[in-house]
Amino acid sequence: MMHEPQFSHDFIRTLETLFSWRRDVRHFKKDPIPDVILNHLLSIACMAPSVGLSEPWRFIQVKTPKIKTEIYDLFKTTNKEAAQNYTSEQQILYNNLKLSGLDDAPHHIAVFSEENPTQGMGLGRQTMPQTTAYSTVMAIFSFWLAARAYGIGVGWVSILPPQHVKEILKTPDHWNFIAYLCVGYPQFTQDTPELENKGWEQRNPKRKEWIIR
Amino acid sequence: MMHEPQFSHDFIRTLETLFSWRRDVRHFKKDPIPDVILNHLLSIACMAPSVGLSEPWRFIQVKTPKIKTEIYDLFKTTNKEAAQNYTSEQQILYNNLKLSGLDDAPHHIAVFSEENPTQGMGLGRQTMPQTTAYSTVMAIFSFWLAARAYGIGVGWVSILPPQHVKEILKTPDHWNFIAYLCVGYPQFTQDTPELENKGWEQRNPKRKEWIIR
Repeated sequence: MMHEPQFSHDFIRTLETLFSWRRDVRHFKKDPIPDVILNHLLSIACMAPSVGLSEPWRFIQVKTPKIKTEIYDLFKTTNKEAAQNYTSEQQILYNNLKLSGLDDAPHHIAVFSEENPTQGMGLGRQTMPQTTAYSTVMAIFSFWLAARAYGIGVGWVSILPPQHVKEILKTPDHWNFIAYLCVGYPQFTQDTPELENKGWEQRNPKRKEWIIR
Repeated sequence: MMHEPQFSHDFIRTLETLFSWRRDVRHFKKDPIPDVILNHLLSIACMAPSVGLSEPWRFIQVKTPKIKTEIYDLFKTTNKEAAQNYTSEQQILYNNLKLSGLDDAPHHIAVFSEENPTQGMGLGRQTMPQTTAYSTVMAIFSFWLAARAYGIGVGWVSILPPQHVKEILKTPDHWNFIAYLCVGYPQFTQDTPELENKGWEQRNPKRKEWIIR
């Protein structure tokens, strides 16, 4: 065991800057990220908490161009369908958003969660089996934050149909699709969400208030 | 917009220390945390990414002693039932684990997720409505990491039955129970999970390898 760390005020201030400048990135440069950095980010992801120490996360790097194209095509179809849910004015706004960086991101990472892992012997998930998926989400978010500290952008594509993604990637039945990530150096950085800048939605200050019981 | 930040090597190293010393804490000192710090941690939680900028998280501070006792009693019942799932040898090990800090943590925080938020106008969740819950998980993890930087411990109690918790806390039907957190200053800190120290489970190095497609 290392000596117990103390976190300075300076560190905490910079950590808060990291939280406020983390973005869901959709505009990437084409330059690839060195393997040594990607591997390091994965090792940080694996420090995430997991229910019963089950480490249910399964990270796939999608490298085959044909598969990347299939995923991008799937996104385009689903995105077109999603646009139909909006009225004409909203639809114009929706179609003006760039909702994935699948076209230009140099790295595609698909993340799955083992539905019923033997590791951890089921501890902590008897009443809420979905906590395995939640563990995987925290691994993704660890990856995302560390990436941002390295100047690397991550974009979470969330409107792919899970079953189609599983078929394209030929994953086992007991893997639960969690996220498809675009990863690369961002074309620009910002401290406000793109959805806010483009007028889709804004943060609600009420969300920062406690409910008391 | 602020000037774009750069994150130094020193900062990144300390960030990695934060990830490796974050723990799921079960042993708390009784001293309360000042409100100003708890409120600040909540404001950091709210910087988390959320699907469509929907901010679906709902944080409840549980302060009423009677309600805290009801939750603790519920935990004890569920934990006893969970222990029955194990064979005699595993059961001895299981019963030797402290799986909640509900008895001594000065703060109890219940976290819920709005199932179908109007904020965000449904963007990004057409094929995976569970991404709202995932957004809330990232808010919890932001709270957790920032708390650790402030020397504050967080423990996620995951074996409560959601419906009972909702009844005790009288929450709306459309709120999805995500987590019950124990929060306080930890009795001790460590860089290895307690489940590993107590011989329940250990990390699998294979988890840090990419699968390639």
